[in-house]
Amino acid sequence: MVNAGDMNGSGNLMDFLDEPFPDVGTYEDFHTIDWLREKSRDTDRHRKITSKSKESIWEFIKSLLDAWSGWVVMLLIGLLAGTLAGVIDLAVDWMTDLKEGVCLSAFWYSHEQCCWTSNETTFDDRDKCPQWQKWSELLVSQSEGASAYILNYFLYIMWALCFAFLAVSLVRVFAPYACGSGIPEIKTILSGFIIRGYLGKWTLLIKTVTLVLVVSSGLSLGKEGPLVHVACCCGNFFSSLFSKYSKNEGKRREVLSAAAAAGVSVAFGAPIGGVLFSLEEVSYYFPLKTLWRSFFAALVAAFTLRSINPFGNSRLVLFYVEYHTPWYMAELFGGLWGTLFIRCNIAWCRRRKTTRLGKYPVLEVIVITAITAIIAYPNPYTRRSTSELISELFNDCGALESSQLCDYINDPNMTRPVDDIPDRPAGPGVYTAMWQLALALVFKIVITIFTFGMKIPSGLFIPSMAVGAMAGRMVGIGVEQLAYHHHDWIIFRNWCRPGADCVTPGLYAMVGAAACLGGVTRMTVSLVVIMFELTGGLEYIVPLMAAAVTSKWVADAFGKEGIYEAHIHLNGYPFLDVKDEFTHRTLATDVMRPRRGEAPLSVLTQDSMTVEDVETLIKETDYNGFPVVVSKDSERLIGFAQRRELILAIKNARQRQDGVVSNSIVYFTEDPPELPPNSPHPLKLRRILNLSPFTVTDHTPMETVVDIFRKLGLRQCLVTRSGRLLGIITKKDVLRHMAQMANQDPESIMFN
Amino acid sequence: MVNAGDMNGSGNLMDFLDEPFPDVGTYEDFHTIDWLREKSRDTDRHRKITSKSKESIWEFIKSLLDAWSGWVVMLLIGLLAGTLAGVIDLAVDWMTDLKEGVCLSAFWYSHEQCCWTSNETTFDDRDKCPQWQKWSELLVSQSEGASAYILNYFLYIMWALCFAFLAVSLVRVFAPYACGSGIPEIKTILSGFIIRGYLGKWTLLIKTVTLVLVVSSGLSLGKEGPLVHVACCCGNFFSSLFSKYSKNEGKRREVLSAAAAAGVSVAFGAPIGGVLFSLEEVSYYFPLKTLWRSFFAALVAAFTLRSINPFGNSRLVLFYVEYHTPWYMAELFGGLWGTLFIRCNIAWCRRRKTTRLGKYPVLEVIVITAITAIIAYPNPYTRRSTSELISELFNDCGALESSQLCDYINDPNMTRPVDDIPDRPAGPGVYTAMWQLALALVFKIVITIFTFGMKIPSGLFIPSMAVGAMAGRMVGIGVEQLAYHHHDWIIFRNWCRPGADCVTPGLYAMVGAAACLGGVTRMTVSLVVIMFELTGGLEYIVPLMAAAVTSKWVADAFGKEGIYEAHIHLNGYPFLDVKDEFTHRTLATDVMRPRRGEAPLSVLTQDSMTVEDVETLIKETDYNGFPVVVSKDSERLIGFAQRRELILAIKNARQRQDGVVSNSIVYFTEDPPELPPNSPHPLKLRRILNLSPFTVTDHTPMETVVDIFRKLGLRQCLVTRSGRLLGIITKKDVLRHMAQMANQDPESIMFN
Repeated sequence: MVNAGDMNGSGNLMDFLDEPFPDVGTYEDFHTIDWLREKSRDTDRHRKITSKSKESIWEFIKSLLDAWSGWVVMLLIGLLAGTLAGVIDLAVDWMTDLKEGVCLSAFWYSHEQCCWTSNETTFDDRDKCPQWQKWSELLVSQSEGASAYILNYFLYIMWALCFAFLAVSLVRVFAPYACGSGIPEIKTILSGFIIRGYLGKWTLLIKTVTLVLVVSSGLSLGKEGPLVHVACCCGNFFSSLFSKYSKNEGKRREVLSAAAAAGVSVAFGAPIGGVLFSLEEVSYYFPLKTLWRSFFAALVAAFTLRSINPFGNSRLVLFYVEYHTPWYMAELFGGLWGTLFIRCNIAWCRRRKTTRLGKYPVLEVIVITAITAIIAYPNPYTRRSTSELISELFNDCGALESSQLCDYINDPNMTRPVDDIPDRPAGPGVYTAMWQLALALVFKIVITIFTFGMKIPSGLFIPSMAVGAMAGRMVGIGVEQLAYHHHDWIIFRNWCRPGADCVTPGLYAMVGAAACLGGVTRMTVSLVVIMFELTGGLEYIVPLMAAAVTSKWVADAFGKEGIYEAHIHLNGYPFLDVKDEFTHRTLATDVMRPRRGEAPLSVLTQDSMTVEDVETLIKETDYNGFPVVVSKDSERLIGFAQRRELILAIKNARQRQDGVVSNSIVYFTEDPPELPPNSPHPLKLRRILNLSPFTVTDHTPMETVVDIFRKLGLRQCLVTRSGRLLGIITKKDVLRHMAQMANQDPESIMFN
Repeated sequence: MVNAGDMNGSGNLMDFLDEPFPDVGTYEDFHTIDWLREKSRDTDRHRKITSKSKESIWEFIKSLLDAWSGWVVMLLIGLLAGTLAGVIDLAVDWMTDLKEGVCLSAFWYSHEQCCWTSNETTFDDRDKCPQWQKWSELLVSQSEGASAYILNYFLYIMWALCFAFLAVSLVRVFAPYACGSGIPEIKTILSGFIIRGYLGKWTLLIKTVTLVLVVSSGLSLGKEGPLVHVACCCGNFFSSLFSKYSKNEGKRREVLSAAAAAGVSVAFGAPIGGVLFSLEEVSYYFPLKTLWRSFFAALVAAFTLRSINPFGNSRLVLFYVEYHTPWYMAELFGGLWGTLFIRCNIAWCRRRKTTRLGKYPVLEVIVITAITAIIAYPNPYTRRSTSELISELFNDCGALESSQLCDYINDPNMTRPVDDIPDRPAGPGVYTAMWQLALALVFKIVITIFTFGMKIPSGLFIPSMAVGAMAGRMVGIGVEQLAYHHHDWIIFRNWCRPGADCVTPGLYAMVGAAACLGGVTRMTVSLVVIMFELTGGLEYIVPLMAAAVTSKWVADAFGKEGIYEAHIHLNGYPFLDVKDEFTHRTLATDVMRPRRGEAPLSVLTQDSMTVEDVETLIKETDYNGFPVVVSKDSERLIGFAQRRELILAIKNARQRQDGVVSNSIVYFTEDPPELPPNSPHPLKLRRILNLSPFTVTDHTPMETVVDIFRKLGLRQCLVTRSGRLLGIITKKDVLRHMAQMANQDPESIMFN
């Protein structure tokens, strides 16, 4: 922003306003930007630099730097987002393990790092290396037994509560915007809304720190959504360093779209998936240039993350399975779960917003954390971190697998290579695992509904995937055992010979995870790409695709909105969704204000109002701008003047321009109007007049108007009939009308 | 279309025109569609079906069918495109081998299929199975020796000429639109241009058949681009079966976008790459709904292809390499090759278009085929099919590899596992291969420039990739040998210990192929995704990405246009590219017609012109439509009437409406004007009046106008000043102005 101090006093009265004055071209908080104006301002800037670049070598270098600044910003975003993601990963590992014990050789080591250099040879022994001590071992020197268990249990809960309390307090005190996943707000910001501070430095810092705390506390939430927010904060920070982006809200949003891609890229290690996520789910205005830059930022981020945290212990391991089986049960479940989750979560969030519950966010977090920790500890599938759980559920049972889920009864007479193991009857471990998984599934479903939306950073990807993976794995094991015991059933007969490996429960888990994530977020292409970048399984595109599409169909049948759109609606953000179709038969004249019977539109005239008249009009109304007409009688439209700029211009003129007093005439024409001889000096405001306001006729169908608002990113649009100004339609009018029409229509389902 | 016969005679004179009459809402050939109107027509249709669906169960079922018809069309497109691609693959295999010999047991078998059941055990022997006979063996019973070689050589050329002649004749006689890759035209069509027959059934049939012929003839062209055209023809065919798509040019284009994705999907076996290609390269209007449907169509197509042709012998094999090395040389080459190719090819095509050369397309094809066959036969790298060549170049040299390129001198003392082979000195085979590759490279570069653009189906992907792969492999082998012989050079010292496997020529080939393809087409994200779906190498995203971006930068530095845009410009299609940025400071008033000094705009008045006046105006001008104003004096805009619909409406009214004669008054208002008592019956044309024409003010910057044209897909836009009509801007005016401004600006590079 140009400071007021930069403006050197000027005796040049008439042309004064041809100089830019402070704050022109910026927006107020919670207002919508004008995409067309931002774009045209950027073109002006670009033109200026290009023409200057021919003057001197220095200017030429500056123009080159300007041209490359986009790529530089992408590089910086990728580096910072990757670094932060790596640091978060490492810190989460350490703090998650801290709930159970501590490393004696170096307390800042996680369990794995602590035992890394241990001499034990087998994996199982290495897990129990002497340097790593459980709290009970350290405090009462007991590693087994009831009292040790209770002590460990108690300390687990205490650590979890401590982390959660610290997190919610930090959020409350320093950065209220750091809560939630941030994706609904980022979608809204990218669509052109201004929320100051949402992507600020404090939010960046606090969200990073509290994300580590809440993930470590074992709450049922993921770090993926918040990482997108963190990456967008990085994007906002770096774009503030370059005037090309800091001074132009439209250009800034291009950077933020790319930053969102980088965020998903580091969250899942999936650069292509990240770009598609940004395109499909988050972004509003996504030109091809942004596509390339997003790809670049996503790759740099993924690469940085990999160099910081090469073991990638939070990344899901690659797994190799073969599929031969139908999978439709898992998908149907995914769609239903998505719908159920969205409905329950939104109902709960609305209750939180509207009742007294919302007044005790800290208490809420403490209670939920306590419940989570108490229920999670006894069950091995909920005690460990959710991404480890998913990784185990996806894994196929090889011969060397020691997991409880792979406790099958082996035929001792059989000699087979390690990687080709036929179907076998389940052993007792599998049955135990099934019970524990079922309990864990119910627990996860319930607790996630209450967790998402609390005043802490909380992502939804990992819990959704966990729910799907658990359900999928259980279905998979069930089908496998059915196929083993009933080879002769018709459905199995064709593809399952006795002694063959027909059913792979790991694949069911993967498909289930994709279906649940798809049901909740309604992603399709980006979901499939993320899943297959996660798992490296190019061959599984078909089942994954089927899962994504089926679960989307099922979920859409019960409600059109994904979780992010539902939260946007819940919070009442002015977000004009590209996906909503408007199919009603209304016209612009039905939506425009003033309605029939309302006071006429507040307009300015081009050369007959005084400064005082304008000031009164500004004071008496709260509109964001005023159409300028030839005269009140003819109502022929000349242009549009923004309220904010009118105020600034008049204030400026009164302070600095001699002769401008309350009854000076304000004129928007090229030449000053002819005035009586001793009238005060007139005020020329053509500079702030938008000479190309957007107009539609009163007969324009509203679907066209909605389309224009969406595609051109308008703030408002004037309505005319045969050249005469009739009224105005703002973005909020459009949104209100759309909600109204949707409510009238009994067939369409809305959540509010 | 509604048939004239469907219109039952009506005595109802006044309201007659409220019924639809034939051909309203269709477009003439080589005209541009009006996206907004198409969209609003579709909404009307949808609304009608929804309201009807409540009337009876049958209507409800019909509405469900209508809602699902989009997915059904996608399914059908996927099935047909996959089937055609499979059939083309099989036929090309057979006919390519036919040039060299024939299978005695069944003449319709290709070499591979013929020897499939042979009893020979090794691969080498199997290639020489007794059922497969070279022509020389069959005709003169000689398989070796000079005369056999010459006979085979001669028959190879003859077959090639025969195939090429047949192909060019078929194209000339039956479907002239079947030539070229089709992608530039599809881009233009998708942007809203009408080219009747371009996607017709004849084109589909002839393009499929001739594609087999030209690929088999051994010309330097690929089948990938034409497969996109074939898939789009399928899309057009199936969309003509559903009234939802056949009657709406906008909806039809959504189907075509998805069909293009299916085409790339079967061309490369890359469904995700196909969707991204359609999004990045081909499509104009790509809503999210189309994204999902494209994905579905692409998957079905890929799946169908795989079930028809399970060996996928045209698909490039998966290969596994490790990279450790810098790769910038290959990329730079890619960008330069892209630029060079585009410039030379466009220059040649322009010459073909403007000189006598263009009059002998058949002769041209014969000559180029003869040259290709004569030069290609002696060199093993050009004789085989190009996709086999690329596959070999990508392949890493394992211990079992018998290729000439893998003729390294092995250290007999070394025992190593098969898949970990260190760098070795090159043997004589590698040196021979290098020479042959160098010759093949020069030949491919030159011949491809002349081949692309001939009057036969011809794709560019495979030749571009071959050029890149050859160059990359040669660079790779060079670096490898340098590293082997000079371990102590600084650049090698850090990463290349003696006896280690430091350089993988196969990776260089892959990166080179990506760089060349990127340089020619300027694809980025879709290129990387296609390459890694082709090769299955998720780990190689980074070098591939670097290759794509670098080659794009290099190529863009020399010229902004990709090959498709260059061909669009060469052919003068009205294509408004989303990628071109318009940064000039002109205003709408500078572009609109009439210019200063020209005759005033031809307008209709709302209630004072006779039928004859209108007919005269239509006859004397060739505008596509006329603004309707209140009166010639006030020039306040009421609406816009299409020329085509005016003609149809007047013709219809004269035939069927009694009392409409030449001096009937035409009126566009709600109520008929007051007429003298004995004047003839007036003609009401409000039905065909577009009451919501798009207007901008004369001060609107042209960049905003360009943006509006692009995003809303307008045909024309009216220019007003304070409510009075000043002029009109059509899409062609915008394109002309953009070309003009680009030519004035010495810094921007244009090809024409």
